[in-house]
Amino acid sequence: MHGVSDGHRDGSLVASVYRWVVGRPLRAAEVTSEQITPVQGLSALSLDALTSVAYGPEAILVVLAFAGSAALGLVLPITIGIVALLVILVISYRQLIDAYPEGGGAYAVSRANLGARVSLLAAAALTVDYTLTVAVSIAAGVGALTSAFPALSGATLPICLAILVVITALNLRGLADSARAFLLPTLVFIVGLLAIIATGLVHPLGSTATHLDRSLVLAHPTETIGGVLVLKAFAAGLTSLTGVEAIANGVPLFRPPRVQRAKQTELLLGVILAAMLLGLAVLASRYHVGPTANETVLSQIMTLSVGRSWAYYIVSLTVTIVLALAANTSFGGLPILASLLARDHYLPHLFGLRDDRQVFSYGILTLAVLAAALLIAVNGNTNRLIPLFAVGVFTAFTLSQSGLVVHWWRTRPRGWERRATINAVGATATAVATMVLLITKFTEGAWVVAIAIPSFIFLFTRIHRYYDRVSRVLALDQVPSPPRKRHTKVVVPVINISRLTEHAISEAISISDEVYAVHIALESGDQPSADSDEEIMALWKRWNPGVPLRVLHTEYASIADPIVAFIDELHRRSPCQIVLLIPVAIPDRARYTLLHNHLDLVLGHALRYRDDVIVARVPFRIPTDEDGPAAGHGDATR
Amino acid sequence: MHGVSDGHRDGSLVASVYRWVVGRPLRAAEVTSEQITPVQGLSALSLDALTSVAYGPEAILVVLAFAGSAALGLVLPITIGIVALLVILVISYRQLIDAYPEGGGAYAVSRANLGARVSLLAAAALTVDYTLTVAVSIAAGVGALTSAFPALSGATLPICLAILVVITALNLRGLADSARAFLLPTLVFIVGLLAIIATGLVHPLGSTATHLDRSLVLAHPTETIGGVLVLKAFAAGLTSLTGVEAIANGVPLFRPPRVQRAKQTELLLGVILAAMLLGLAVLASRYHVGPTANETVLSQIMTLSVGRSWAYYIVSLTVTIVLALAANTSFGGLPILASLLARDHYLPHLFGLRDDRQVFSYGILTLAVLAAALLIAVNGNTNRLIPLFAVGVFTAFTLSQSGLVVHWWRTRPRGWERRATINAVGATATAVATMVLLITKFTEGAWVVAIAIPSFIFLFTRIHRYYDRVSRVLALDQVPSPPRKRHTKVVVPVINISRLTEHAISEAISISDEVYAVHIALESGDQPSADSDEEIMALWKRWNPGVPLRVLHTEYASIADPIVAFIDELHRRSPCQIVLLIPVAIPDRARYTLLHNHLDLVLGHALRYRDDVIVARVPFRIPTDEDGPAAGHGDATR
Repeated sequence: MHGVSDGHRDGSLVASVYRWVVGRPLRAAEVTSEQITPVQGLSALSLDALTSVAYGPEAILVVLAFAGSAALGLVLPITIGIVALLVILVISYRQLIDAYPEGGGAYAVSRANLGARVSLLAAAALTVDYTLTVAVSIAAGVGALTSAFPALSGATLPICLAILVVITALNLRGLADSARAFLLPTLVFIVGLLAIIATGLVHPLGSTATHLDRSLVLAHPTETIGGVLVLKAFAAGLTSLTGVEAIANGVPLFRPPRVQRAKQTELLLGVILAAMLLGLAVLASRYHVGPTANETVLSQIMTLSVGRSWAYYIVSLTVTIVLALAANTSFGGLPILASLLARDHYLPHLFGLRDDRQVFSYGILTLAVLAAALLIAVNGNTNRLIPLFAVGVFTAFTLSQSGLVVHWWRTRPRGWERRATINAVGATATAVATMVLLITKFTEGAWVVAIAIPSFIFLFTRIHRYYDRVSRVLALDQVPSPPRKRHTKVVVPVINISRLTEHAISEAISISDEVYAVHIALESGDQPSADSDEEIMALWKRWNPGVPLRVLHTEYASIADPIVAFIDELHRRSPCQIVLLIPVAIPDRARYTLLHNHLDLVLGHALRYRDDVIVARVPFRIPTDEDGPAAGHGDATR
Repeated sequence: MHGVSDGHRDGSLVASVYRWVVGRPLRAAEVTSEQITPVQGLSALSLDALTSVAYGPEAILVVLAFAGSAALGLVLPITIGIVALLVILVISYRQLIDAYPEGGGAYAVSRANLGARVSLLAAAALTVDYTLTVAVSIAAGVGALTSAFPALSGATLPICLAILVVITALNLRGLADSARAFLLPTLVFIVGLLAIIATGLVHPLGSTATHLDRSLVLAHPTETIGGVLVLKAFAAGLTSLTGVEAIANGVPLFRPPRVQRAKQTELLLGVILAAMLLGLAVLASRYHVGPTANETVLSQIMTLSVGRSWAYYIVSLTVTIVLALAANTSFGGLPILASLLARDHYLPHLFGLRDDRQVFSYGILTLAVLAAALLIAVNGNTNRLIPLFAVGVFTAFTLSQSGLVVHWWRTRPRGWERRATINAVGATATAVATMVLLITKFTEGAWVVAIAIPSFIFLFTRIHRYYDRVSRVLALDQVPSPPRKRHTKVVVPVINISRLTEHAISEAISISDEVYAVHIALESGDQPSADSDEEIMALWKRWNPGVPLRVLHTEYASIADPIVAFIDELHRRSPCQIVLLIPVAIPDRARYTLLHNHLDLVLGHALRYRDDVIVARVPFRIPTDEDGPAAGHGDATR
């Protein structure tokens, strides 16, 4: 994955395909972050929130259906409650934009204000949230597709995974022009859906007499209408609010004046999302829409408003597209979070490395694998993911808001009391919501999250402890003692006497005065290898390279063991550093490597835990064409 | 796969499981070849031939069935013809034992007498034959099992593959005591089957009124009884003769006087096999047995002779076991053939390496993979493999016999004319049989063999040509020029300033006077890395190790490219050898390796085709326990 030169002459098919999918290496300067406007901000940062109308109202109705069709009317008051929480969140997050114009994710804000320990809770919650966002968005997008085209419903999971693969590949390429490319579908989605809702409210074009398949609304309710039911439905509806934090994380992307534009975008998002949620709730109540097995609630409402017209199909397809794009925004989030965690030594440092497309490929691939596992586990069913969703988000909301309260109290700018109060209200509201979510959905799947979050925290702390030890062992914080020369002995394994051997011995005597050539005589049960021993000894004497040859006998069929034993013997004789110089013939074509012994791999593997031997590979090129070995140097790198 | 030390501290689960399956490493002396008697010889070397009674007669009947039930009676005359060929082969092979007491495989005999080119034909034919023997024996063994227990017939392929896995694992362990372990089932099989045949011939215990499912015998024959039909049936029956060459290959295994004992065994095999084939043919004619979809012909004959009695079940199970053991004998053959081919540079030299159980593991694994592919391709169906079988064997028969004629003509011992004549008759008979096989079965599957054999020959010659080139480039046949010292420059990539860096720089100045430390500054689009540059430069000056530090800037996110460019620059300045000394922190536990950067792998990969850079790894151990780095040396190898 590293290195420009890889693509040039790597003969392997896998490497070629990878390069074709991912594209040529990019300079850092080629991926300048674009500067976006509020409307572009909606498409780049708000799709996660806006598209939650595709599953949020449905999640409410699924809960209410357990109390029978009479309970379905509760969707409107519950939605009003959720919109009230949305208002609090939008105001709170506009304040967060003021406080953290450099982009204030829950991890950064809680690390700054609540300490490292709490920030790990935020990081774990966000990791869970990003993974679920990808899975839920893709599953809901495919749900919209199969509602419009029921023939596809048999292939739900394969379609989900195919979309995931495409998104992953695009992210490995790096999405330089994402905001611009996302603009059109986002606008079609917002305008189209609002227009359909308006049509439905004012003068429905579709037939309200459509026969609805109410199979999921119980004729004999298993729950009575009461406080618990309302709480459960409210908790389910909270999934509509996931994603409202994304704009605050992405403030640096905006064109200056950044803070103002970001706050405008947050407000715009709040207004549009509130309008959509309320509109859909009114229509759902009016049409008595309930959840069905084969058609989403959104699809039913759209059908009842405008019929199965071209408008229905266009908006349905757009819903699938924007949901896939919403999944894509998580791919913007998790890899960056992982790189921050890597920088703070909570994840392997690999997650902090950009690959040659300047993207954090390890984070992207990890997210793809986690999301694929989730989609497979629930077989692409959105409603089985919903109970797991939102717990992570609301934990992160709570931590952000709480962190901000501490921030205002510490910095005390003008009007800090008012600001702190607003965020305290936000923190309290989201904390209550988190508890409601966790309690009402625990047995339905939230327990998975309740296990996953502490597990991630445990992983982060274990990794951090290891890096601490490394830092102590390497004395990273001190100026080390000055380097000093040591006596170095060089060992060269010799298989035959050839130009390769000459090359390796030349190199050995160039770097040390004490060189040992060793030849391994493998004894097989039947034929003792004495003959070939004497043969190589005689040849060696004839060549007379000025270096002693030691023939090491072994009864085991291992070349590595006698060499390791010989190195131990050298160490015992006098303390020294040992360089093992392994002659290696390297063919020009990858397919010929199978024809050479892999002494370097075998010995490297046998010595991989030894810190007293330097393993070095002396390469000697075997040209493919009959151009002789001398023509090598330049060619080998083209 | 190499090295005694591997098992000792390799933490990985895969390595532990492999070690558990395969067992501890063995000394060469621990695998002394046992010395066997003629009766043991039957079990160790003749199972392939003897067990062919399980599919040979059936193969004849399958062909005859196309001409309707009247044609089934031809099984007896055709079997007599096959037994006649068996007699010729046994006499010929007893002569081969005389001529090649050191074990005369078709490859060795044709290489010695017919030249290298023809020997490759033998090698390719044998490779095909060994693979098919494994597949056919396992499929026929499972056929015997599912005939006795029809409930298992749904799981034919999984059972086949499971048996293959067990055989492969046993061979990777090395089968030191095979002949003794095989003795009991072999004797039960020979005595039991002969007793059942005798019972059937003299006084059948089973009911002859059993309803037979004759679904595969056509009511409306598609072929008429004629010369072509007889030829086809004869060709199909030739599969019964596969394996009669094995004793001649294994002469060195016998207890002295070797030649005599081996010749006795060959005779014994001929007599038993002839008795079984003739007996089964008589019974098949008498009972009008035909092929069915769910029960083998052998199972039908046994049922009709002794009923579904305990004797039937014991012999059926024994047939499965001895067929699995027959597959096992190929695992004795192909890896040795492959090691000979590797020694002669026709296969990768890896095939000539014994692993730490003193077995040729690459040959064993290759055979297992090829046989598994065949079994999967035909879904475990013996009769779909039969048309492919025997072409390879009879090609090898022909080449052995022809080679022997040349041998007698060259050496001219007493009575050579008689011997040469016998082998010439054998060669002619088997050559005719090969042609008959190829022509009659071409469209049914023999074309696969007709493609596979030339493909193997092509592969062998391509590999040989490459090794020739290597030998020329390395000047393997000449005494090389004496080694001479060269100026060596050392490049040390530096990521931070730590004990690891100090360790690497110490090593660098120990082996060269010209050392360059290089630090890669990755520039990301947003933040220029100037700060950290100045920081590391300031630290370097404070440390002052006496070696210049070069900060290399790159716009690409690759650490390898700037280092490769710097190496090119050093080469341009003055011709020299360059050692790239990569500091590597090595944790004690494999699971921690993910937490370290893999600079050595990244740079090693980027430079893998360069012959002007020696890549060396300077290891520095990170102890797992808090025992400090100094305690390392001894521990790391325990």
